[in-house]
Amino acid sequence: MSSDKIVLGHGSGGTLMHDLIDSTILKHFPAQNPGSLVDAVSVQAAQDHVLFTTDSFVVSPQEFPGGNIGDLAVCGTVNDLAVMGARPKGLSCGLIIEEGLELSFLERVLASMAQMAKTAGVPIVTGDTKVVERGAVDRIFINTSGVGEPVHAMAGLDAVQPGDAIIINGPLGQHGATVMAAREGIAGLGDLRSDVAPLWGLIDALLEQKVEVRLMRDPTRGGLATTLNEFVAPGRFGINLDETAFPTDPAVEAYCDALGLDPLYVANEGKVVMAVAQKDAQRALDILRAQPLGRDAAIIGTVTDEPVGKVVLTTAMGGRRFVTMLAGEQLPRIC
Amino acid sequence: MSSDKIVLGHGSGGTLMHDLIDSTILKHFPAQNPGSLVDAVSVQAAQDHVLFTTDSFVVSPQEFPGGNIGDLAVCGTVNDLAVMGARPKGLSCGLIIEEGLELSFLERVLASMAQMAKTAGVPIVTGDTKVVERGAVDRIFINTSGVGEPVHAMAGLDAVQPGDAIIINGPLGQHGATVMAAREGIAGLGDLRSDVAPLWGLIDALLEQKVEVRLMRDPTRGGLATTLNEFVAPGRFGINLDETAFPTDPAVEAYCDALGLDPLYVANEGKVVMAVAQKDAQRALDILRAQPLGRDAAIIGTVTDEPVGKVVLTTAMGGRRFVTMLAGEQLPRIC
Repeated sequence: MSSDKIVLGHGSGGTLMHDLIDSTILKHFPAQNPGSLVDAVSVQAAQDHVLFTTDSFVVSPQEFPGGNIGDLAVCGTVNDLAVMGARPKGLSCGLIIEEGLELSFLERVLASMAQMAKTAGVPIVTGDTKVVERGAVDRIFINTSGVGEPVHAMAGLDAVQPGDAIIINGPLGQHGATVMAAREGIAGLGDLRSDVAPLWGLIDALLEQKVEVRLMRDPTRGGLATTLNEFVAPGRFGINLDETAFPTDPAVEAYCDALGLDPLYVANEGKVVMAVAQKDAQRALDILRAQPLGRDAAIIGTVTDEPVGKVVLTTAMGGRRFVTMLAGEQLPRIC
Repeated sequence: MSSDKIVLGHGSGGTLMHDLIDSTILKHFPAQNPGSLVDAVSVQAAQDHVLFTTDSFVVSPQEFPGGNIGDLAVCGTVNDLAVMGARPKGLSCGLIIEEGLELSFLERVLASMAQMAKTAGVPIVTGDTKVVERGAVDRIFINTSGVGEPVHAMAGLDAVQPGDAIIINGPLGQHGATVMAAREGIAGLGDLRSDVAPLWGLIDALLEQKVEVRLMRDPTRGGLATTLNEFVAPGRFGINLDETAFPTDPAVEAYCDALGLDPLYVANEGKVVMAVAQKDAQRALDILRAQPLGRDAAIIGTVTDEPVGKVVLTTAMGGRRFVTMLAGEQLPRIC
């Protein structure tokens, strides 16, 4: 048995697995007490209910400019809580590992998770480790679930009304374009870099100023187009987007132009889109722009009376087109 | 595109994925409101903190006598909460699906999850679905995480003392032996059947009678031997087991005898082992035996002064042997 690779016994429940957990996993996640490996842990919440979410991560390649699967696993779940106004209180880490995986890679992924969790201010409190035989999984898949404390209330989709501003905290498509380019081995297309980042700090800063945010979402798989189509789906209002107002990343623009991709459909991992009461739109922008992750925030559109149920883009040339939901698969295994 | 198989687009985040969720997944998990697909949901807890756990399921084969991977996914997480005295309040369902999976199989798994969750009295409240290309995962892996409300307090491992009774609710090894036999295609060895079952009802019935249970665990991977070695690991006491006191399943006995396996190391998915104050041991047994899942409950051992840190088995022939923790892998992908 080689000591620098995962073997099936590391998933046995026995001494090898205890060694892996003690010597490799808990080294990175010290919040868990190595002396009391229990399967369920207590998470303190200051209120009488908690927010609960889950996400599995299968990104390929598993390391890319700007991050790796571990960064995604932490940020994805933190952000799912954050856009609901919930402070992340505890994350779980479920690892499914392929026999033969290099321990050095596992260490990098776990170190990234630990660092990102620290940045987000949330401990990784419980976990599970399975090892499957070669070929039964592609290197490593990670599930993170999260428990959050609801500290900011938002009125929700039902409260969105014509005149509300649509605001995003930065340029679209950085994560998707980076993973796509990394997978294809495309180089020389500029400084592509995933935007993977935990958004709780940014969102908390905004909401504690009592800005009237109706709702927020993180436009991940399917991109902004899909998220905004979910906004308009109830059929009470439409959304008009102004192409000239979008913050842009030149590297993403160049990449998408070269491949004929529309950044509206490309995945993000550090973006939040929100509908904000018109009266608070400028104030929201100011607060967001004062934060590193909101530096490029912009009002990119407006909620409209009609056409109901539709997202319309006014292009830089003054034309108008419908932005529909992504149908099939733009890029599998983007997160 | 064939309509009875999963395609990559089912994981896109777009309309195909919305269709899969609406037409297949939410049909089974109606607790989630199809009109408001959000990534994090509120879970009510009656107290100020919650129990939180996670588990990934990779069992092979994914259907076996007595259950399937979906049954395991619900029971495993319910039981991790239950042994901590926590009433399960909400489960998540994270699916990683291989392109090409038959929808009929997915439906069976989801139906099992829904039925088992109903039996356990816990809703499946949030989820995530990823689809990966053929060969990147073996059919389907499932992560379930769970949030529970701590309704019964147990003193814990530190309170265990010599004289305490070790009690189990039924015979060992039914899940592990069944999966092993199903994998090897062995037939004619009797009526092997997984013991997969949600234990909250049994445990709740016991603890609400104020029986002094020090702690409980579910002996899954690594079997009872591994769990009891975790009990004695702090080195304050030992455990003596009486082989003649164990409840047995003739089908498991026959299978293990034939293959030279020790049921002490074979996985269970519907068993709980507990240390109970001597004064309450008989009462605990009576309460457990009145429940279907505790019909075969037995006192199988005693906490001893010495040898500290060791589990000793007194065999049917009167001999004594150490029962050590499982080292490597008895059987990969047992759960």
